[in-house]
This record gives sequence, structure tokens and C-alpha cells, in this order.
Amino acid sequence: MSRTLIKGGTVVTASETVRCDVLIEGEKVVALLGGDAPEPTVDRVIDATDRLIFPGSVDAHTHMEIPFGAATSKDTFETGTQAAAWGGTTTIIDFPIQMKGESLMGSFEDTMAKAAGSSAIDFGFHQIVGDVNEQSLADLDLVLEEGVTSYKLFTAYPGVYYSTDAEVAKVMQWASGNGSTILMHAENGSAIDLLREQAVARGDTAPYAHAATRPAALEGEAAHRVILLAEMTGAPVYIVHISAKQVVAEIAAARARGTNAFGETCPQYLYLELAMLDQGFEGAKYVCSPPLRDPAEGHQAALWQGLSNGALQVIATDHCPFDFEGQKTLGRDDFTQIPNGLPVVEHRFPLMLHAALAEQRFSLNRMVEISAAAPAKMFGLYPQKGTIAVGCDADIAIVDPAATSVISAETHHMNVDYSCFEGMELTGKVETVFSRGQLIVSDDRFVGSKSHGRYLRRGLNQLLF
Amino acid sequence: MSRTLIKGGTVVTASETVRCDVLIEGEKVVALLGGDAPEPTVDRVIDATDRLIFPGSVDAHTHMEIPFGAATSKDTFETGTQAAAWGGTTTIIDFPIQMKGESLMGSFEDTMAKAAGSSAIDFGFHQIVGDVNEQSLADLDLVLEEGVTSYKLFTAYPGVYYSTDAEVAKVMQWASGNGSTILMHAENGSAIDLLREQAVARGDTAPYAHAATRPAALEGEAAHRVILLAEMTGAPVYIVHISAKQVVAEIAAARARGTNAFGETCPQYLYLELAMLDQGFEGAKYVCSPPLRDPAEGHQAALWQGLSNGALQVIATDHCPFDFEGQKTLGRDDFTQIPNGLPVVEHRFPLMLHAALAEQRFSLNRMVEISAAAPAKMFGLYPQKGTIAVGCDADIAIVDPAATSVISAETHHMNVDYSCFEGMELTGKVETVFSRGQLIVSDDRFVGSKSHGRYLRRGLNQLLF
Amino acid sequence: MSRTLIKGGTVVTASETVRCDVLIEGEKVVALLGGDAPEPTVDRVIDATDRLIFPGSVDAHTHMEIPFGAATSKDTFETGTQAAAWGGTTTIIDFPIQMKGESLMGSFEDTMAKAAGSSAIDFGFHQIVGDVNEQSLADLDLVLEEGVTSYKLFTAYPGVYYSTDAEVAKVMQWASGNGSTILMHAENGSAIDLLREQAVARGDTAPYAHAATRPAALEGEAAHRVILLAEMTGAPVYIVHISAKQVVAEIAAARARGTNAFGETCPQYLYLELAMLDQGFEGAKYVCSPPLRDPAEGHQAALWQGLSNGALQVIATDHCPFDFEGQKTLGRDDFTQIPNGLPVVEHRFPLMLHAALAEQRFSLNRMVEISAAAPAKMFGLYPQKGTIAVGCDADIAIVDPAATSVISAETHHMNVDYSCFEGMELTGKVETVFSRGQLIVSDDRFVGSKSHGRYLRRGLNQLLF
Amino acid sequence: MSRTLIKGGTVVTASETVRCDVLIEGEKVVALLGGDAPEPTVDRVIDATDRLIFPGSVDAHTHMEIPFGAATSKDTFETGTQAAAWGGTTTIIDFPIQMKGESLMGSFEDTMAKAAGSSAIDFGFHQIVGDVNEQSLADLDLVLEEGVTSYKLFTAYPGVYYSTDAEVAKVMQWASGNGSTILMHAENGSAIDLLREQAVARGDTAPYAHAATRPAALEGEAAHRVILLAEMTGAPVYIVHISAKQVVAEIAAARARGTNAFGETCPQYLYLELAMLDQGFEGAKYVCSPPLRDPAEGHQAALWQGLSNGALQVIATDHCPFDFEGQKTLGRDDFTQIPNGLPVVEHRFPLMLHAALAEQRFSLNRMVEISAAAPAKMFGLYPQKGTIAVGCDADIAIVDPAATSVISAETHHMNVDYSCFEGMELTGKVETVFSRGQLIVSDDRFVGSKSHGRYLRRGLNQLLF
Repeated sequence: MSRTLIKGGTVVTASETVRCDVLIEGEKVVALLGGDAPEPTVDRVIDATDRLIFPGSVDAHTHMEIPFGAATSKDTFETGTQAAAWGGTTTIIDFPIQMKGESLMGSFEDTMAKAAGSSAIDFGFHQIVGDVNEQSLADLDLVLEEGVTSYKLFTAYPGVYYSTDAEVAKVMQWASGNGSTILMHAENGSAIDLLREQAVARGDTAPYAHAATRPAALEGEAAHRVILLAEMTGAPVYIVHISAKQVVAEIAAARARGTNAFGETCPQYLYLELAMLDQGFEGAKYVCSPPLRDPAEGHQAALWQGLSNGALQVIATDHCPFDFEGQKTLGRDDFTQIPNGLPVVEHRFPLMLHAALAEQRFSLNRMVEISAAAPAKMFGLYPQKGTIAVGCDADIAIVDPAATSVISAETHHMNVDYSCFEGMELTGKVETVFSRGQLIVSDDRFVGSKSHGRYLRRGLNQLLF
Repeated sequence: MSRTLIKGGTVVTASETVRCDVLIEGEKVVALLGGDAPEPTVDRVIDATDRLIFPGSVDAHTHMEIPFGAATSKDTFETGTQAAAWGGTTTIIDFPIQMKGESLMGSFEDTMAKAAGSSAIDFGFHQIVGDVNEQSLADLDLVLEEGVTSYKLFTAYPGVYYSTDAEVAKVMQWASGNGSTILMHAENGSAIDLLREQAVARGDTAPYAHAATRPAALEGEAAHRVILLAEMTGAPVYIVHISAKQVVAEIAAARARGTNAFGETCPQYLYLELAMLDQGFEGAKYVCSPPLRDPAEGHQAALWQGLSNGALQVIATDHCPFDFEGQKTLGRDDFTQIPNGLPVVEHRFPLMLHAALAEQRFSLNRMVEISAAAPAKMFGLYPQKGTIAVGCDADIAIVDPAATSVISAETHHMNVDYSCFEGMELTGKVETVFSRGQLIVSDDRFVGSKSHGRYLRRGLNQLLF
Repeated sequence: MSRTLIKGGTVVTASETVRCDVLIEGEKVVALLGGDAPEPTVDRVIDATDRLIFPGSVDAHTHMEIPFGAATSKDTFETGTQAAAWGGTTTIIDFPIQMKGESLMGSFEDTMAKAAGSSAIDFGFHQIVGDVNEQSLADLDLVLEEGVTSYKLFTAYPGVYYSTDAEVAKVMQWASGNGSTILMHAENGSAIDLLREQAVARGDTAPYAHAATRPAALEGEAAHRVILLAEMTGAPVYIVHISAKQVVAEIAAARARGTNAFGETCPQYLYLELAMLDQGFEGAKYVCSPPLRDPAEGHQAALWQGLSNGALQVIATDHCPFDFEGQKTLGRDDFTQIPNGLPVVEHRFPLMLHAALAEQRFSLNRMVEISAAAPAKMFGLYPQKGTIAVGCDADIAIVDPAATSVISAETHHMNVDYSCFEGMELTGKVETVFSRGQLIVSDDRFVGSKSHGRYLRRGLNQLLF
Repeated sequence: MSRTLIKGGTVVTASETVRCDVLIEGEKVVALLGGDAPEPTVDRVIDATDRLIFPGSVDAHTHMEIPFGAATSKDTFETGTQAAAWGGTTTIIDFPIQMKGESLMGSFEDTMAKAAGSSAIDFGFHQIVGDVNEQSLADLDLVLEEGVTSYKLFTAYPGVYYSTDAEVAKVMQWASGNGSTILMHAENGSAIDLLREQAVARGDTAPYAHAATRPAALEGEAAHRVILLAEMTGAPVYIVHISAKQVVAEIAAARARGTNAFGETCPQYLYLELAMLDQGFEGAKYVCSPPLRDPAEGHQAALWQGLSNGALQVIATDHCPFDFEGQKTLGRDDFTQIPNGLPVVEHRFPLMLHAALAEQRFSLNRMVEISAAAPAKMFGLYPQKGTIAVGCDADIAIVDPAATSVISAETHHMNVDYSCFEGMELTGKVETVFSRGQLIVSDDRFVGSKSHGRYLRRGLNQLLF
């Protein structure tokens, strides 16, 4: 097998920052070597002088090519995983979606068919359970056998993905029996739908109404509820895409009393804000659910704080890109028709790098923890993914911490016509990316292949109390 | 320099459990090598098949040869550090004690003189500030230059170590200016002394009264107070030897609002309990401050929970051994004359190993975090100490996870005539210990030297928000 | 008009305990007179020497002759209001029940028809909204015009009274616009129904399963949710028949942040307990929703505490009696068929009197507040009802505080074949009762009339912040 | 005895608003009469048409003629009680002050000597315990026999009134044994003194520094601490002159867990604010302790909220007036020399009347509760004081709710050269005041006498759980 030595750099993992060389053999890291260690013979040397060497990043929440109302999210597994790679992400976990009335196992197979052979990087799946019934409960056992150890339900979107509390509890009971983790989209969909109908009825149809009808208190309410259901059933619960300070507080309180409750937020909830929806229909570019929040209410500060103090464990993206022209514009006359979602997969790791390097929001180690190690542990992929250690997959992102770059739709690699972070200048630049020992980004070119990425059968949550 | 290869074992750090070999050159780890990596030439091979390889453990709270009333704690730096080594601990942080009316710099120099040349393992110091005045404040700057970055004050022991809130605040202001961390013994000494006097006055003089006059609520009160003083001054605060659930809650709440508040507990507060004091004068064996608590009130459960969920970061010992005969017995007629303290330094790491291996209270990784990595980070020694990584000190404890041992005063190595854990059977056994590359425990013999241990100049707290 | 003087007694209101005479003219109290005041000429003197004179008590929660599954609650307005009078209660507020698919206004008219001309004491109505739709929302305005200023919804009983969160919010929005108060039966009916189905499916069909499938946490969850909906809509919310400590905490927290949240508990949740359901089918006598709770979990203590510190404002009964033979027995093979409800209306005031006189749980004044003054203020009847003051209705209960009585189905006046307080000995005895100046209980006889009670048009909540 | 009838008005008590006439005979209210009640023969009729009739108000916290540093508070019992009467206050509770090294009983006797024969209205005493020692503890028993049932200690003012936690606990233990209530001035005096010294040392000597060196968090800290000491000892604790939201929260939390903790605030903390100190030396007019707070931090809102929801029970004044010229000016070069205190006794009731009538902050009944009924109950004077009921003292304030007045030093009756509420226009005007049946304010004249006021021997706290 071919040997590569990444030489002269500084390895940054969740726990250490260490000057050492990384020896890759085939798909694996086989040694970490200090300057005084005997030098191995290798086929290729990558000069990492003045560079930081990170474990390939893990995005635990993406939605490639999924339908939302009349639109389909623009990134396919092919375009989306390549964009991810450009940003140093070497693992994604996407979602087969069982729709109401459809087969759960079918949704898994369909999504697998889309992703297999089309992904530049490795991928796993969380299964969305959109219709809790006898057949879908039976299918859960089959999907579990395929290495899917996390299942997502919604208290939002009545009539679409919404589950009643009984349905949530039923799936949690099942998960509790086998150690799976339940992901929850926590917003009170019932009350939100009332507010949406009333907004439309009174002609309040601009994008801003999308946020105004999804108050933070209703996100907090749903989080409180699903955490209690998790406590009742014994299932670990992971609340996705948290935007509201109330949810941070609910998770902190649950963890303080010993509950396996976990939380994820996304860069958009940290760096973007409510006011961005309030600019006529341009605001549609910022429509996602839960919505962006008002910093004056302290949400962003609470999220950053939660990432620092451990109330939140994971930074993911909820990547779900829609073109402004032709897709977001479906809701020009009615905000309820705007497809929900933002393009983020490419910039999550660079944004967090910037947060650590330029904004000193947390250490580089904590940055690696929330963006790579913790999602890998949470979803049973560690230490294969999420760190750089002997025996792990050689998923590596080499970064020049002194370089800068500017985010722009002109230059990004996601298949979407705008960027919600347009113009933002970032400190730190991902230069070189390996996926399982294969160089996939180098010298400003994508050098990987469409069929390199493999499906990841995952183990159970390693972050349980 | 001499090379040693620890071969065939499994390295367990705070973040990973990895099958790999560890290459030591001189005092340092220079490589971590997988089975497929090129084999280095070495001088010595340690066979670690079926063994776990841990970073040498870090005990951040010991008291060797200190006075307490009429007694002096029995372990000298020589006996105490050797006992520590037997239990896999390769770093201790001890305390120079400035007494009222004495010189702070003098206390530092005296303690250094005692430890230097007498320690089997590396050691650092927290400085106790027992008399806040102009001279001692001036001395703080000098001690800081010696690499002491943490300072301890007491809200307990009026007339002895006690500082007023103004004095605590004054030292915190100083610490805030240079990044040092303030350690607090948090009990309301004023109210406690009233209860003690009243107990003695009514003839309630048995050891149990020691605990009865130090209620958990008064530990919680003091913790609340010093955390507010820390918030007012901006200094990081680390509460030592936490025994009460109230303190766990105070720290969790402070951290949730972004305060740099930290907490340490000790094995005695986890495994021992109030009732042990209630057996006539035998109870004196369990006299320490704060006292052991009643499990029916939930203290022990809250401490375990805190170690798991991150409210507490460190497990240390407050090791302060007194013989039962001749020392504890000084208080036979009056519990206030019993010297406070327990012998624990040898068994902290083995007990935590047992908690992870046999009781599944947390993962082995979390065990390493609370007993080695976090104290090293908290007190500016990481990654030199607290982990196994390229470039770190070769402080290593090799453990047979299948072996068992029984704690007994008959066999322990601490210089004290009883064990407070007498008869407890532990899963896991420390077999081999390295300190800075030198073998110090091997084949059931201490093979280190009295003068091996070096003084550690420490950096600042690496766990700040 | 006829004049009566109640002479020589001690008047006890929510605010005072005062030795004075009460002068009644017609239906009203027209003077309170001290011993030195000029003596009026009167038609009748009631000697109240050594007696306590209370305002007639107000039971804000009764269910006369309502269907529950296959059974109808045994007390008619005729029997139920006479039983109430025996126990010193001179006002009840009952509930017209709109069932799914039925007319709201129709339910109001039907219940009015049952109560009018059949009640021994005055009565008002809270309207149950069992089917939120355009017609029922329109009917609400009509019912409001009839002096109904409080409306009840359920998060329990899916398919029967259950409202979705959107429906609850919609009615709250309406109430917020006119100042009405929303009553909530707060239990998570969706999750409870799952547990019930699962219990039945596994053959767990005894009465105890009724309680086991309605955990306290699910009562707390629903309370949390409806309080947030109340905050979102601006409606005052009053949570009925609280049994769980979690709900007490939710209300206290809401009130601390300025929310108009109120709470009611009932004697059964204070004096009875979970274990009573665990005695085979006899347990059916104690089946009500929410269920009786386990004192070991602190529920009863929290309820008493809440009544003392103001977190809870009202003690009512949720009186809903079913015979054990023939009614409760409908569920002999399946607890889900046991009609829910207990017979309490006669003993609420005597039990609270006992709690104050014999158990010193609170002062007599606080007792009057929670059982008469506060419900009267909460539901817009004060000071017409709930106190003894010049100008108020002469609703009066004269009590011998030195007498005792024993509760028994043999002697009670409710139309039901058992008592859930059987054998309990109470200190204090209601001897004489006036309703609007008319003597209705005297010398151990009911001397009122079936048609004396009048419908009470009510004002708005007088306890709002 | 002479009879007076107050005719045609509306009586407002803590519990009722009732149209009725009030019959006074001698010093007592002997009857409340409705329009239809038989008319009594009387000596004098006061026409109260369109007027509100309130119980004379109770100010539970005044400091007449006391030393503060080099100054003595300007109002004597003579001038201060007359000013109180003008504002509808008919009872004050003042404070004998035991200074360090002085006799406690002596301080009681001295203060009694000053007040007796000099007070226009009735008065009671709380005893300040400024030096906890054997003699003063012995004296407490003597003072208790004089009808003093409440004792005040300070965590502020080290070296002056300050008690250590042990001393506070010791007096609380004594109080717990006899049912007395402990009043606490809760600020962390130790930390405050450090900040004061540092402010002076750096030349920060203007009045604003007075507030800047007494942060709200240190008031909250002390409240937390004394509540825990109260819980430990079993004594009821009443925190005086609360200015900080943290204290409101501490009391609410304590009450929620069943602790007899009570809170008082004062008009200055509701209507005045931090910025008023920031106007050069004019700011000295607003120097009091604790200091005025910043509304942007939510303190005032929390205090109003606490008065509404019951976390706070009492509105008093901490009346302690110093002339600006000659007294406040003592601190012109050094804020620490400014005597602390504000002139408020005359305007407390008028301000609360305004808060209810014009600002709708609470009902008139709740206003009477916090300003008359609750202080009377808290300090064992109810129903003799604090309400209008048969048998109570005829202390009555008749108010024209339609009239307005403007506060000004030009027109007020306190013996001080400025008003901290200068220019404030109030709705509602106190027209007529009775003290124990004697007319003392009428037709814009003080018609009482210097020797009318009597010392009140008080009972125990009637508001205990």
C-alpha cells in the first residue's frame, strides 16, 4: 500500500495541538511521529510547514436533493459532497425521508441509491420517520440492521412530517430498546400553523412573516416536551438546528438532571439574524426553520455560550440549498410557499475555523470537538472519523491559518445561485483534503472522484451518560 | 538517548481508545505507531499485550507534610509521591501554606525546599494565601514568576486560613489581572464555628459532630458567594473538594451563564458517607472538611452526575493523611482537635479505574479526562502532562484491566496506619509506571528514585470560556 | 324586608378574624356591628356564641349530572347543590359541555335548563369548548353575553374533549380580546393514550393502571405548554385540579415572570394517594384524572406548600360522583372503562376547616381565601360572594369549631354509594348555612328549597397582575 | 364616648372595596353600616361622598433622629410623625439602635424616651442589634418583654452595624426560639468596603461612586446568604429596603421551597434611579443604601412585579432625611462622608395611591395590602392596625381620588431642605386623617397633638407559613 507523510505541520484534534508528522498507509493513519522518531520511507510527502492539520470535519445534518413543497434542494449528493470537501468536510450524515403514506424502508433504499456512487466523501444516514404506523415500525428494525442508529421526528410541519406526542413516544420506546438516538426538529407546529394561517389571512405574506410566525418560545416549548418524552421512554434525544436560547436552557437543565439530551446548532443561527428577513423579498434568501433570531433577545449569545460550556455539543448545517431565482421565488406572493433551507455545507468548517482563529470564541481544540469529534461520537463513527489517531481513517484537512478567503456565490462550489454569507471574509483557508487516504482537494482543484465516498454503517451514541 | 517501545497495548486518552505502540525517547513520547507502521529500533520493549496504557495521572490537590493543629500530615514528599506512583499518579500539585503573620514567599521557598530532591514524580504548587496584606500581595507577583498560576483562599477556618470577602475579592482582582485561577475552600467558616462551639458547649464531642456542624447548605452558601465574587472581579474560580449537591448546582448554573467556574471532587466524597463518622471514635478516621455526606440527600449521586455531565471537571484527593493512633486520637475528647484529612493519593486513579471498568459510571476516556487531562489543562500543564501524544512527557501508567486488588493499610504505600477504603476490592491494577521516560514502578517494586521528580512551572488555565 | 342578626360570633374572612355581629336584611349583609354599636331591631336573632362565622364557601369546579363514557355523574343539580350546602358551600361553578360535533350554545342552554330551578344555592358556569370550529367560536360571543367569563379546554382526552395546541391558542386569542380566563385540564393526552393502549394490550387492566399511565411528568409537560400558549396569546390561564408538584413549580415560575397563571387543587390530591388505587378493583373508587399521586415523590407536600405560599390560589373539588356499584364497575375488566371522578362537593369546606383548625396547615383566613374569596375574585363574583362585608350576599356558614364529625357514605348527602374519605374524622362542624339571607341548613336539617339558587352572571378575573 | 360617622364613602381594605359608613366610638371602629342599616345617633358626621376611606397606612421602616456618621437624621419623632400623618400614615415602626460597645437595653430606653410624648401617631420599634455579645443577647429577652418582636441585623457596614454570619445565626437561633422575625440589611459589606476604599484611593469621590461601589449582585449575594442562615436556624427573615432584582428572585425561590422569607421595598427604589446620582454633587440628594438602580437592568420592573405577585410583601420607606446643605455636603469631597438616607415618610402612601389610581400598577386593594395590612400582619399589629373592621383602631385616611397634588420641598412637612421626588404630580389626595378616633389632619391643617401617639406592644408575625 502507498504511504504518504504529512510533514512539518501541527496536528489539532479535540484534545491536543501537537507538532508531529502524520503517516498514512492506504486509507488509514498508521503513525504519528515526532521530529526525533525514526523517519519512515514513504511514497509521497506533503509539506505542512506552518500549516494546521485537522481531522476531516463531520457534518451531521445535510439534505441533498430532497423535495420541499414544489422545489427540490439543489445540491445532489455529487455536487453537495464536493462542496463539502472544498470546505474540509469529509463525512456527512444525510436523511432518507419517509413521507406520509410511503414506505420507510423504501425511502432508505431510494436515498442509498442516490448517494451510493455519487459521493465524493463518506456518508451515513439518519432515518426520518414521517409516518408512524405498524409497517414503518417494522421497517425500523430493518434500517437499524443497515447501520442506521439515529432516527428523526418532527413536532413541526403538521400534515407533512409532524408526529403526535404519542407517535414520538412510540418511536422513542423502540429506540430506547436498542440504544438508538432520536433526533427532533423541535418547534410547536400546531401553534405555528395557526399563526401562519392568520398571517396569510391578514395579507402578511412577505418573508419576514416566516420568522414572525415561528416565535422562539414555541421552539423552547417543543424542546421541553420532547425532552420529557425522552425521559419517560429512556431514549437519548438530540435536538437539531437549535436557534433559540430557550432550547439551550432546556438542554442544560436536562443534562444537569442526568438526561441524555443533546443539542446541535448551525452557523446560520450564529452569524445571521432576524433582520435579514426584513428586506422585502430578498429576505427569502434567509428563510429556514427554525428562523433566524433577534440578537437583542440574546439567542446568538446563548448559542455561542452553549457551544463553549457544553450545553450544545455539535455544529452541523441543516444544509438544504434552494436557488433564489426559480425556487425561493415560488413564495413571492406567499411566504408559506418559500422552500425552507440555506446553503451552508461548504462553509461550516471554515466559519468555525474563523470563529476560533479570528474571533477567539473557543480554542481550536474545542472547535474540532464540536465540528468533528463530537458528531462522530454522537453518531457512532468515532474514532474512525472525527480525530487523527493511529488506526483512524485518513480523513484530513490541511489549513493555512494565515490565509484568508471571502465567501461568495461567485466562487463557492455549492450548486445554488446565492450565498447567505456573501462577502464575509474568513481567516484560515482549507488547502488540502484527504478522504480515506485519497487526496481530494489540492492546489485549488477538486481531485477526488464521484464514486469514492462509502456508506458508513454506524455504531451507537458514544456520548451517553 | 535511550528508546523504549511499549508494544501491543491499547492507549486510552481523554479522547481516544486506540490500539497502538508508544515510542519513548529519553523523557518524551516521540511516536505513536500502528501495527502497519515501520518498526523502529529500540533499546527496550515493554510488552503491553492485553494491557491499557494511560497517561500518568494528575492529582491536583495534595498536602504533604503540613501542620494541622497539633499534628503534621504523615506523608512527606518522599513517601507521598512514591505512594502516588504506585497508584499510577505521576504528577501532583501541592500547596505552600502562608500562615497568618508569616511570609508568603517564605512559605513557597520552604515548601520548595521540602519537595525538591525528595519527590519521585513531578510536582507543581498552588500557593495558599493565608494572610492577605500588602506584603503578601507583593509576594504574589514573585510567586507567579516561579510558575505558580493558581492561588487558594478559604472561606472556612476563621482565625487560621480564613479570608474575608474583601480579602478574597482583592486576591481575585489581582488574579484577574494576570490570568491566574483562584482555588476556594468554600464553606461558611463563620457559621460553622458557631455550630462547633455550641456542639462542644453541650458536650457533643464525638467525631460525628464534626460532620453535623458542617451542613451541606453552608458549603453551598460559600460556593454561591465566591462565584459571585469571581464574577465581580473577573477571576476564574475553582472550588476544591466538593462534597455537596448544592455546590454542583451552583457551578452548573454559573457555567450556564458563562462564568469561568470549575469544580473538583474527591474519591472520599463519592465512595464514603456520613454514617461512617457515626461509630464512636472510630469515626475519626473519616474526619475531613467538608465532611462526608448522607447519600439519602443525594450528594453522592449529584457528584457522580456532575463528573459525567461536566459540571465538575476534576477528581483530586485533598490527600492529607494522619495516623489514627497518635494523631486522630488528639481529638478523642473533643472532635475539634481531630486533625482533618484522609489518606487518598495512592488510590484515586485505581478507584476511578474501578468506577469506569467495573461500575460503568463513565467511559475510560471520561475517566482519563477528569483524572489527568482536565487537571493538566486546568493548571497549565497540558499536553506536557495528562495525555499520551507525540512530544509529551513520557508519564505513563500501564494497567491490567482484568486484574483485581484489595485496598488495605497492610499493603498500601502511604505512610499512615489505616485506610479509609479498607477492604474495598478494585477491578484493574496498575502494573507499570513511567515518569518522564524513567520506569518507576515495575514488577511490584518501586524502581524510581527520590530525586527524579522535578518542579513544574505551570502555564495558565486552558479551560477558560 | 326581614332582618336577621347573627349575634355573638366571630366573623372570619380572608383578611380578618373579628368579633362582631352580622346584620342581614333581605338577601344582603347590611351591617357589621361591634358590641358597643347601637343595637338594631331585628326579626330574628341567631346565637353564634363560640361559633365562627364564615362567608359561604365557593366551589369553582363541579360536574353535576354529566356523562362520562357510559355513565352519568350521579349528583343532579338538585342533589349536588344540597350536598354542597350541607358542607357550607353556597356557590358552585359548573360546566356546560360542548361535545365534539355538538353546539356550544346548545350545551350552555341545556345545562342552564338542568340547573335553573333545581339548585339549592347560587351557581355559575364555565363553558367547556370541546370542538373548536367557526360555529363554536361564534357561539363563544353569545355565551360571554350570558355572563360566562371563563372557558375550559383540554390537552387530555384525545377524540373527546382534546384540543390541539392551535385550537387552544385560538380560543386563548379570543379570550385575550375580551378578558376571559382560560381553564385548562393539563395532561398530555396524546402520550397518555399511548400508555393506556399499551397497558390494556399487555393485560394490565386493574384500576392502578389508570394512575400508572398518567405520570406526573406528563401533567407538568402540559402545564408548561399551555402556560407558554397563554403567554403567547395574552390570555390568563387557570390550571384545574392540579395533582403534580411539577405543575406547582410551573405556575410559580410563570407568576414570577409576570404571567397571569393560576392554579387550583382539590382535597383528594391533598388527602388521598396513589396507593389507594392499588387494592384490586376497590381502587376504582379512587379513579380520577389526573390521578392520585405518590407522597414519596413530594406531590402532596408541594400542593400544601403551594396553597400556603400563593403558587396555588384555589381549592375546588372537580366533584364528579359515580356509584361504585353499577358505574365504577363498568371498568371491572378494563380500567379505561371506569368513569373518572370522585364525590367531594360536600366535604371540601369541612376538610379545609379541618386542615386549618386541627392540622394548622394555614390560618383560618388563608383557608377562607383559597376556598371562598380567591375563587370568587378569580371568577368575577367578588365581593358579592366570598366574603362577609356590607352589601355582599348574605351567604354564610356558621361553624362550631369544637365539634367533630366523621365522613361516611352512610351519612353524607351526595347521591353516591361510597365516600373516598370514609371514616375520616374532622374537627369543626358546619351547623347553620344561609344562602342570600335564607336559612338553608339548620338544626341538622336542610331547610332550603330546590328553586332558591340563582344563576350568577359573572364579571372578569379580579386577580390579574 | 363620642361617636363619629364617616358617611357616604367607599371603604377600601386589602380585601374589599365596599360602599358603607364607618361608625367610630372613642378610639375604635364599632360598626360598618350599609345604606339600609338602621342609622345610629352620632356626635359628628364626616361627609365622605365621592371619597375613598382607607385604613391608616403603616410605615414599617423609619429612622427618626438617628446619627449617621457626623450627621443626625433631621426629622425628630415630632416632625417625622406629623409629616407621616399628612401622608395618611398613622403607624410607624422605628428602630432603637444599639451601637458597637453600647447597651442594647439602653438604646431601647433612649429611643422610647425620644418617641414617647413626641409622636403624633402610634409607633412601635424594631430593635437593631449592633453588637452581638452576651450582654446584648441577655438584653434581647428584656426588649422582647416590651413587645418588640422583630430584630434587625446588618451584613453591611463593617465596623459599624455589621454582624458576622455567626452573629447573625446566633440572633436568629434566639429568634427562632421565641417566634421573632429577623430583619436584615442585606448587602455584602466586606466586599463593598473594598470597592469603596479603592474608589476613594483612585480619586473617584463623587456621589455616583456611592452607587457604583454597591453593585446589585452584592445585595443578591447577601440576601442568598441570610436566607440560608434563616433556613438553618428556623427564624423568619425579612429583608429590608430591597433594590435589586436578584433579591426578589432569592425571596421568591425561598418562599417556593417553604421558607419564611419576606421582602420590603421602598418608593425610592421604584420611582428613582441610578442616573440621578450622576449629576455632580447634586447626586448626593439621592445617596442611600442600597443605592438606586439602573432600570435598564430590570430592577424597578422586578420590584413592581414582586409587589404584584407576592414575592415582596411590604412597601416601607427607610425614611432617614438629611438636609442637602450642611449634612449631605459633609461628603462634598468624599462620597463616603455623605450621610445615607432619603426623606420619604410623608409620600409613601400618596405615591402608592398614585401607582394604583393613575398608573394601574395594582388594584387599590393590593395597594392597601402592601402598605398597611401586610406590614401590620408581618409585625403583629393586625387587625388593630392595617384594616377597617369592627373593633380595630379608628386609624383612617380619607382620600379624594380625583384631586391631585405636586410633591415639593416648599410644601412638604418633613424637616428637610429638599425632596427627592420634587415636582412629581400625584393623583389622589389625603384630605382627612384619624388616629385612634382623633382627627389629626383636616382641612389642610394638622389638628393632632404631639403627645397623642402611643407605643405599640406588638405580637408575632402573622404571615408565617
